[in-house]
Amino acid sequence: MKDQNCIFCKIANGEIPAATLYEDEDFRVILDLGPASKGHALILPKEHAANLYELPDALAGKAMILAKKIASKLSVALKCDGFNIVQNNGEAAGQTVFHFHIHLIPRYKGDTVNVTWQPGILTEEDKKEILEIFR
Amino acid sequence: MKDQNCIFCKIANGEIPAATLYEDEDFRVILDLGPASKGHALILPKEHAANLYELPDALAGKAMILAKKIASKLSVALKCDGFNIVQNNGEAAGQTVFHFHIHLIPRYKGDTVNVTWQPGILTEEDKKEILEIFR
Repeated sequence: MKDQNCIFCKIANGEIPAATLYEDEDFRVILDLGPASKGHALILPKEHAANLYELPDALAGKAMILAKKIASKLSVALKCDGFNIVQNNGEAAGQTVFHFHIHLIPRYKGDTVNVTWQPGILTEEDKKEILEIFR
Repeated sequence: MKDQNCIFCKIANGEIPAATLYEDEDFRVILDLGPASKGHALILPKEHAANLYELPDALAGKAMILAKKIASKLSVALKCDGFNIVQNNGEAAGQTVFHFHIHLIPRYKGDTVNVTWQPGILTEEDKKEILEIFR
């Protein structure tokens, strides 16, 4: 099901043109117009899902297998030094288009991409609280 | 197959204890000891694969479905504002342990996690070169 107001629905389904690296019945893989680095691509499901939580399991699984396939191919062809696979959910996580997508970001030594964090400390209190959620 | 020198093999297979949120025959999900934020968890396959390229497709697919499941549960329980799913390949991409893993990072408004990049511009030259790889 498509969302008539979603730009990624339109791109994924070919209503708005994009530089397409790959397409199958479930997905379109395009080049990001504002790339973090050379080769930055996006995996878009054709079916609308705002985020990972809404994406059906079967598509979530296929999306990661596709991420492997495209990242492997780009990695060899572009001779990059690394690869980030990033999937953001919610504005607080940096999501700007609310249609599930996976960022495939080739990394090059000395590039300016910043996918990192200051490691904190796992406190006993947090550990206990979170383990309790899964009990 | 396990790698005898790999700490994540030992953790995934229960030889080194860790705060385990979930376990099945293929994976263990643990709390990160140096969390980016409260609830930062790691999905570790029990089988050794250095990175996404080496991970069998079946496990790549299952890993993303598991990411959805755990992130959904943590998101509700911790009432976080967003979620980053991050998977790094290679030192240049920030990978520090060379056993495939997915970071599940709950995000909270005003936190200090930095999963972002300066958007560049997709040049016609790069576009042409990269499209050629997939022709």
